[in-house]
Amino acid sequence: MKREEVFNFSAGPSVLPRPALERAAAEMLNYNGSGMSVMEMSHRSSFFQEIFDSTKAKLKAALNVPDTHEILFLQGGASTQFSMIPMNLIGGGTADYAVTGNFANIAMKEAKKYGTVHVAASSEADNFTYIPTQSELTLTPDAKYFYYCANNTIYGTEWGYVPETAAPLVCDMSSDILSRRIDVAKYGIIMAGAQKNMAPAGVTVVIIDKSLAGHELPYTPLMFSYKTMIDKDSMYNTPPCWCIYMLGLTLDWLETQGGVAGMEAIKHEKAAMIYDILDNSALYKPHARVDSRSDMNITFRTGDADLDAQFAKEAQARGLMNLKGHRSVGGIRASLYNAQPMEGVKALADYMKEFEVKHHV
Amino acid sequence: MKREEVFNFSAGPSVLPRPALERAAAEMLNYNGSGMSVMEMSHRSSFFQEIFDSTKAKLKAALNVPDTHEILFLQGGASTQFSMIPMNLIGGGTADYAVTGNFANIAMKEAKKYGTVHVAASSEADNFTYIPTQSELTLTPDAKYFYYCANNTIYGTEWGYVPETAAPLVCDMSSDILSRRIDVAKYGIIMAGAQKNMAPAGVTVVIIDKSLAGHELPYTPLMFSYKTMIDKDSMYNTPPCWCIYMLGLTLDWLETQGGVAGMEAIKHEKAAMIYDILDNSALYKPHARVDSRSDMNITFRTGDADLDAQFAKEAQARGLMNLKGHRSVGGIRASLYNAQPMEGVKALADYMKEFEVKHHV
Repeated sequence: MKREEVFNFSAGPSVLPRPALERAAAEMLNYNGSGMSVMEMSHRSSFFQEIFDSTKAKLKAALNVPDTHEILFLQGGASTQFSMIPMNLIGGGTADYAVTGNFANIAMKEAKKYGTVHVAASSEADNFTYIPTQSELTLTPDAKYFYYCANNTIYGTEWGYVPETAAPLVCDMSSDILSRRIDVAKYGIIMAGAQKNMAPAGVTVVIIDKSLAGHELPYTPLMFSYKTMIDKDSMYNTPPCWCIYMLGLTLDWLETQGGVAGMEAIKHEKAAMIYDILDNSALYKPHARVDSRSDMNITFRTGDADLDAQFAKEAQARGLMNLKGHRSVGGIRASLYNAQPMEGVKALADYMKEFEVKHHV
Repeated sequence: MKREEVFNFSAGPSVLPRPALERAAAEMLNYNGSGMSVMEMSHRSSFFQEIFDSTKAKLKAALNVPDTHEILFLQGGASTQFSMIPMNLIGGGTADYAVTGNFANIAMKEAKKYGTVHVAASSEADNFTYIPTQSELTLTPDAKYFYYCANNTIYGTEWGYVPETAAPLVCDMSSDILSRRIDVAKYGIIMAGAQKNMAPAGVTVVIIDKSLAGHELPYTPLMFSYKTMIDKDSMYNTPPCWCIYMLGLTLDWLETQGGVAGMEAIKHEKAAMIYDILDNSALYKPHARVDSRSDMNITFRTGDADLDAQFAKEAQARGLMNLKGHRSVGGIRASLYNAQPMEGVKALADYMKEFEVKHHV
C-alpha cells in the first residue's frame, strides 16, 4: 500500500508531518555533513547542541514563551509528570484537581501520595462528557496549584477557557499543545507528552515558571527535580536526542502552516467538517456535550456496537486507519491532530456520509 | 564529508550499526506496508506490538534471559534507575555499593535518600583507576542488594569478574551490555541506558528477577514501580517506540556478527589492538590499571595536556571523531562499542603510531 493511500486517525502516537519524516529519512546517515546520524551524536557535541538550542528557540517562538518560564525536554511521558508535579509543588499543602477524564483522574490519585488533594470539579458521574464551567469549580484558598487536562483524548472534550484561579495553573496539554494560541504567562506549568502534536513518543515538553522550582519533597528522585533540570538545561543526563530533533522538524513544518495561529484556524476548520456531519446525522451520536467539544479528538457512536466496529473495519479497508474508540467510551474516535492533512479529514467526511446512507434505516 | 570518511569514538550516544540506520531510513515513510512511519504508530497497534514483541524476543535470545526474569523497556536513562532501584528494593534495609566511577558514585548517593547505604569498596582515592577484587569487597550481612557498575565509561575500567554476594546483584551495564556473555540468572537487576551499545538515547533496558518486584516504598512514583511495568509489559503508558524499534534493528545486526559470543571475540580483538600500542609506547600513558581495563572505553594521555588536545584535534581532521577524554580524567578516550567498525579501530591505531613518531622526542 502506498503511503498516499493511508490516513492515520490514531489518538497517539499519531500522524507526523510528511516533510518532517522525509527530511529525517534524507538526513538519517549524514546529518548536516557530520558524517553521523543524529542518533549517533554525543549530546555534548556542537552538532547536537545546535539542534537542541534551535528546537528550544523554535518552541519558545511558536508559543511565545516569556523569559520567566523555562522549556524542558524530559522523558517518561505525562504519566511521569503526574508524580513530578506534586513532588515539586505540593510541599505539605493542598492541590486542586479538575477531573475531566481518565488521565486527570490518574494524576489526581497520584498526587494523593504526596499531599492533600481537593477535587475542584469532576464530570466522572456523566462519563466525562463535559468540561465544568468556571462557576462549577470549587477552589481551595491557598491551594498550591490548580491542575487540569486541557484536552481529554479519550472522551473528546476540551477546555474552551482558561480557569481563573489564585493558585498557579498546572495544565496537561499533551493532546492540544501547538493547536491553539495560549498565554503561557498564565500558567505555572504546562506539560505535554510529544506523541500527539509534536514528535514521536519519548520526549515530554515541560514549560515551567522558574519561580516554582526548588521546593521538592526530600525523597524526590534526582531526575524528578525541575530545579536540577532547569539548572542543567534538560541535560542532567542524556536527553532523548532523536525525539528532540524530530520536534524541531515538526516545528519547521508548523511555521509553513502559519505557526500556532495558522494551525488554530486550520484545526478548527477540520473539526467543523466532522462536527457538521454529526450535527446533521440521524445515525451518529456525539459523545461530548456541544459546549465541551474537542477539535483534536472527535468521539461518536452509532448506538450499535457491531455497527461501530463495522464502521472502523470498512474505514480501514479504504485506508482510514485507527478509528476505533477507546474501550472506556466505545464507538468511534477520529483524532485530527495538527499533522492530519485536510485531505484525510475530507476522506473521512465522505466516508461518514456514505456509511450513513448505506446503514441508516 | 562522506560518511565513509568518519569514525565516531563518542562515549555515548555513539556509533550505531550502519545496516540498522540504512533500514531505518528505508522504512521511514512506510513501515512494512503499513503506510506509516514507526514513529506514527499507536503503541497498541498490531504493527507496533509485533515490533515490541520481536525486539524483546531477540534480546531475550541474545542474552539468554531465563523465564524467571522480565525484560522492561523504560525511559529516563540509568540516572532514573539510580532512584528506582532503591525505591523498589531497599525497603528499610541496607544496600551495598561498589563505587568504581562517577555514575556508581551518584547511584550510591541517591540511594541514601531511601535507606542505609554501605560502601562495599571504592577506588575514588585512586581516581577510579581500578576495580576492587572480590576479597576487597566488604559485604553487609543481609544486604538488600549489591550494586555495581560493570564498565566505567569515564575511567575506562571494567569488572573482569562477577562479584559473589549473598545479596541480589544489581548491575549498571549501560556501557558494556551485549559486548560479552553474561549469566543473567546471577543478577537481580541488570539495567542499561541504550545509547552506547544498543539504540539511540531514550530507552533504558531493565532485566529484573520478577521475585524482586512489588516491594516499593509508599511514595514511589507510579512510573517507578517495577511491578506495574512487569504487569503492563512496559506499556503502562506510551513507551519510547522508535528507540525500541532501533534496538530491534541493532539486534538483527548483532546476529550477523555471531551474536553476543561473536561480539565478545570481536570487541576483544579491537581493544587489544589499541592496548598493544599503549603497552609499547613511550608517549601514551594508560589511565586504567592493567587488570581493570575496559574493552569498551580506552583512556590514556600523553602527560602534556596541550599535546592531548592536539591529538584529538588532528584526529578529527582525518575523520576520527570525539577522542577527547572526559573532563574528570582529561587526556584521550576512545570508545570501541559494538558498532565501532574494525576499520575505525585500525585507522585509530595507524594514527596513534604516526602521532607518536611525530611527537615523541
